[in-house]
Formats: sequence, structure tokens, C-alpha cells
Amino acid sequence: MKQRILNFNPGPAALPLPVLEKIQASFLNFNESGMSITEISHRSKTFDGIINDAIERFKRLLNLGDNYHVLFLQGGASMQFCMIPMNFLRQGKSADYVNTGTWSTKAIKEAQLQGKTVNIVATSEDKNFSYIPKNISFDPKAEYVHITSNNTIKGTQFAEYPQTGQVPLIADMSSDILSRPIDISPFGLIYAGAQKNLGPAGVCVVIIRKDMIKKIPAKIPTMMKYTTFAESNSLYNTPPCFSIYTVQLVLEWIEETVGGLDKLAAENQKKSDLIYNLLDTSPFYHGTAEKDSRSKMNITFRLPSEDLEKQFVDQALQNGLAGLKGHRSVGGCRASIYNAIDLKAVEVLVDFMKNFESTHG
Amino acid sequence: MKQRILNFNPGPAALPLPVLEKIQASFLNFNESGMSITEISHRSKTFDGIINDAIERFKRLLNLGDNYHVLFLQGGASMQFCMIPMNFLRQGKSADYVNTGTWSTKAIKEAQLQGKTVNIVATSEDKNFSYIPKNISFDPKAEYVHITSNNTIKGTQFAEYPQTGQVPLIADMSSDILSRPIDISPFGLIYAGAQKNLGPAGVCVVIIRKDMIKKIPAKIPTMMKYTTFAESNSLYNTPPCFSIYTVQLVLEWIEETVGGLDKLAAENQKKSDLIYNLLDTSPFYHGTAEKDSRSKMNITFRLPSEDLEKQFVDQALQNGLAGLKGHRSVGGCRASIYNAIDLKAVEVLVDFMKNFESTHG
Repeated sequence: MKQRILNFNPGPAALPLPVLEKIQASFLNFNESGMSITEISHRSKTFDGIINDAIERFKRLLNLGDNYHVLFLQGGASMQFCMIPMNFLRQGKSADYVNTGTWSTKAIKEAQLQGKTVNIVATSEDKNFSYIPKNISFDPKAEYVHITSNNTIKGTQFAEYPQTGQVPLIADMSSDILSRPIDISPFGLIYAGAQKNLGPAGVCVVIIRKDMIKKIPAKIPTMMKYTTFAESNSLYNTPPCFSIYTVQLVLEWIEETVGGLDKLAAENQKKSDLIYNLLDTSPFYHGTAEKDSRSKMNITFRLPSEDLEKQFVDQALQNGLAGLKGHRSVGGCRASIYNAIDLKAVEVLVDFMKNFESTHG
Repeated sequence: MKQRILNFNPGPAALPLPVLEKIQASFLNFNESGMSITEISHRSKTFDGIINDAIERFKRLLNLGDNYHVLFLQGGASMQFCMIPMNFLRQGKSADYVNTGTWSTKAIKEAQLQGKTVNIVATSEDKNFSYIPKNISFDPKAEYVHITSNNTIKGTQFAEYPQTGQVPLIADMSSDILSRPIDISPFGLIYAGAQKNLGPAGVCVVIIRKDMIKKIPAKIPTMMKYTTFAESNSLYNTPPCFSIYTVQLVLEWIEETVGGLDKLAAENQKKSDLIYNLLDTSPFYHGTAEKDSRSKMNITFRLPSEDLEKQFVDQALQNGLAGLKGHRSVGGCRASIYNAIDLKAVEVLVDFMKNFESTHG
């Protein structure tokens, strides 16, 4: 490809072009420092400016009060599956987990591997995780409730978050963070690997309510303890500077170019409506998620045969539309339409889908 | 600064300019994929090509046989301080640690935090870590021996590695990996945060002998277990793709532009000789490390007063030489001259030092 492609990859995923252009333009000499962003000390005023700006933008975008820390960790969501029970689930106590797919299942297994007591209070495994369970009863004595807010592989998403009362809600928001405004009040902790909606791979954002920090036992390994990062502004050791810088630019783009989360939510609604309308009116395509559980980020669908699905993915790529293959564990097709994918790109995709149907349907 | 600066930072540190230029040139469209390197799937053939090329280059440069894995992890050396005892130090057994400074001390504390038994078999703490202990006696029943091969803060380096017999040697080589050829045979594991001699922050290279993997207990958290990374070619979850790509380009530069580790070792010898010769002949500057323990990577020195040291660092920066301040825990001055700093840059530094001495001495 001589040109840039339309990238519907599930993650690492498309980034806003103005962000990439800004990185490129200053890559040999960042902000007149005489150095590349990849060469700048994490102990410099320049880097302090970057990380603090990213934190302030997160706080504004999510309406976070001073009772929340915004942290930058390494190891992705998979490391959080381990750290959450290690920090918050005491022996003799239990935590409630909602199982909505591959990533929830991994989070549950990781807690169990530590010998912790997990109650799976709801699961949609009976229908291949094609829906989000509703009217769930939680244990008021649970240490926390864990959910996966959007299921990248199964194409489902919580439309509303469950009511957990006094029990802190913990959410893996890797694939829908900052895609819509949220009410932060029920959340004790939110985590998100950056490589879907926030930036490149290599950094995981953790938003943690300060009262959660107080519960953490002392004898956890230093790098596994949220306290370490909260007390050092994520600078206990060298952080993933380039990834944090790119996240900062994406947040700047959301605030200053897009105009905030309301605008993104409206755009994401239009984008997903366009595709779901086609799925609902076409005899050729059909969506795999139940209607009231559909994701606005990852749209999973099938064609009449696996052979046609393969042709669809291949021809799309030849037409400059990449990443439309479903996850290897479920097959089919998937369009990941995170914040960086604009309405125009989705219109191109829908036109391609209509053309493919008219020639193969 | 309109121009690029000479960057003597201890890490994140200077990268080879041709590497940065290559990243910049293809930043919007990597290898005709139509995507930025920051947008490419880690499950793609393109990324497989990058990570496998980096592994092959490591194997060639260090003469690694098929009995070694090359892995890419997150969390830096600090995460390794935790993972090493977790994976290899069983209850009822002990490990030998050599304490040569700040990072060794942290590695020791992290093992102790897990309730593991650590024997500090040698330390240079009696002289503020200004030398590398010699003729150390090791416990032949130890699970491993841990050393820090180069001490970034104290400016010391193992000239030769200790003889540990059948006990596997484990080394933190964050600040001198690939600065010289080494005999790999005593090493069970080598680790190195990339941001000094290998690439940008955000990835830690782990070279591990395959027999070490067999000793790892099953019930370690998934992301803390070397087995997880060895069995998945470091692709269990999304790796830090951009940092790995940059490491690949640095390795390519070492092999194809510099011409290998012998060439680098000769250059590093010349560079450090230039500065140490000045320190040894000048009444104005003096080195802080004992002569037989001097680092070829981080050269620590003092001026006659703290006030002169401050003037030195400030005037150097005004003359386009950055990063010459010593670590905040020890004060003084430090020139970090990793692989990416060429002889010409060191000549500019030495000229500046001579001029400063002639006007302030």
C-alpha cells in the first residue's frame, strides 16, 4: 500500500492521523529539547509536563475528583487480572465476577490461581457469550465486583453498569474507555490497556479511588502494588515514556479536536448504527450479539459461509480495508470501530459490504 | 535547541540517529502496510518478522545456542527483581547476591520481601560502592548467584564475571548489555531494561537458558512466569510493539552499520580511555570509582566543589552537552557513554571539560 489503509484492527488499532503526524514531525527533536521523545529522561521537567498533562486531561474527560489517581502501568490488562486480587482480595473473603467472555474468564482464572475465592455471580456462557447478563444479585460482603465493560471478541458491551451498592465496581475498559461519558461514582478501579482506544501498546491506564489504596497489604511485590505507582506519580522506575506521550496526544486530540466525550459518543452511535442497520436489513449478513447487548466498538457478524467470510476479508484488504477477520477463537468477521475510526471510514466499509453482498449474495 | 543535542543521559538515553531517522521516515506507513508501526497487530506476519529478526540478531551477537530463549517483557529491571526469586528461589533454599550499589540493593530487598533467603556474599558498601568485590566465595548449593554487571549510579562495572561453577549466574545487564562480547556459558539468565543500551523505555530483554524454565513452579501468576513468555514467543498478550521494533533497529544498526560487538567494545574502550585519561591527569577532575572497577558506560567524577559542579552541568548544557549531572543520590557529575554515543561526541565532551578546567581551575 502506498497510501494509508482503513484499519479496523481490534488492537493494536488505528490512531488519529493528526497524532501520528505530530509524533513524526518532532521525532528527532521533541519540543526543542534537542532529543527524540524516545531519548528524554523520565526525571526531566519535559516528561513531567507530558505525564501531568495526560493525567489532567483524564480527570477532565471523566470528571474525576481529587479522590482518584490516574496511573500508568506496564503489562497490559493481563497484569491487572493478577494485581487486582493480589491487592484487594483477602484470604477468607470473596469477590464477585461477571463472566462475559474470553477476558473475563482469564481474569477469573488468574484470581483462582492465587487461591482466592471467586463467585461467578452471572455468566453468558450458555449462549456463547452473545449477551450481557442483567438483574444480577451481588454479595454485599464481596471485596469488589469485577466486570469487562466491552467484550472485544464477542462484540458485546454493558449499556448500563450494574448497581453494586457499597461494593466497589472494578472494570476492564480496555476496549471502550473514553468512548462515551460515564458516571464514575460506582467505580473503585478502572483499567485499560492503551492499544485499542488510547494509544499504542505498552501502557495500561489505571484509575483508582484513593480509599482503595488504603486496603492494600504491605507485603506485595513492589511492582505489583498500586501504592508504588500512586506514591510516585507512576515514576517509581522508568515508565513506558513513548506510549504515555502518545496517550497524552490522543487525549489532547479528544479534547481539542473532537470536542470531548459527548461528541465521541454521538459519533460512535452513528458509526455503529450504520453497520447494525445493514446487518438487520440484509439477508446476507447477520450480527452475532443479542440486540440489547451490542457493542458500539467491536461489531461481530457472520456471512452465509466460511468461504464467503474468507473472500470478504481478502477483498476488503485489496480495497484498503484491513483487520476485518473475527478473532481466531470464534471465526466470522469483526469491524473494530474505536474512536480513531471516523464516520467516513465506516461509510466506506458499509459501501464495501453492500457491494460485496450484491456480487456474492 | 534547533539542533540535536549530545545526550549523555543515563537512561532513557541517546539512540543511534540512523535508527531514529528510519522510524520517522516510515512512521505513517510502515513497510507499505498502510499503517504506522504503532497501529500494526501483534498477531500479524509483519510483527512476527520484527520480533523474530530481533531474536535472531540477539542470538548472533551473543553467540547464543538453541538452549537459550530471548524474551521481551514489560516492567523493566524492577519487575525482574521480583520475578527472579519468585521463579527460581524455593522455600528452604537460598540464593547468593553480590551487592554493588543501588540496583543490587533493590534486587536483594525484593527477594527478602517475598520471605526468601538471600545471602549477601559480597558487598562494596564499606566504600560507598566505589569498587567491584573480588575473590568471592559462593555457596555451591545456592539456587543462583545474582550480580549487577554495571552500576549506572556508582560508575563501576565487572571487568570479569565471577566463577560460580554449577550455580547459574544471573545478571542485571541493563546498562552494559551488548557493549562488549561476553562468554554466555555461566549465565542462566540475563536481563536488561532497554532504555540504556538497546532502545526506548518500555521493554526489558530477558535471555534465559532453557533448563532454567524447567525449574519454575506452576502456581506463579501468569504474567510473572517466564514460562508464559517462553511458550508464546513473548506474544501471550499484546507486547510493547513499538519498543520491540526500535530494539530490532538498534540491533540491525549494531550488526550492519557498526559491525558487531568487537567493534563496539574497541570504540567503548577508546571513548572511556579518553575521559579517564583526563580524570587521571587533571588536578581539577577526579573519578569516584576505583581504577580496576571503572565502568566503560557510566563515568562518574567530581569537581573541586559542588558549586563548580553545578556551573559545569549548566555550561555544558548551554554548549549542547546534556545529561552530565550525577544521580541525585550521590551528586557530582556523570557522563553516560552508551553504544549510541560515538567517539566524536566524547571528544567534544573532553574538549569542553578541558576548556572548563582552564577557565575555572
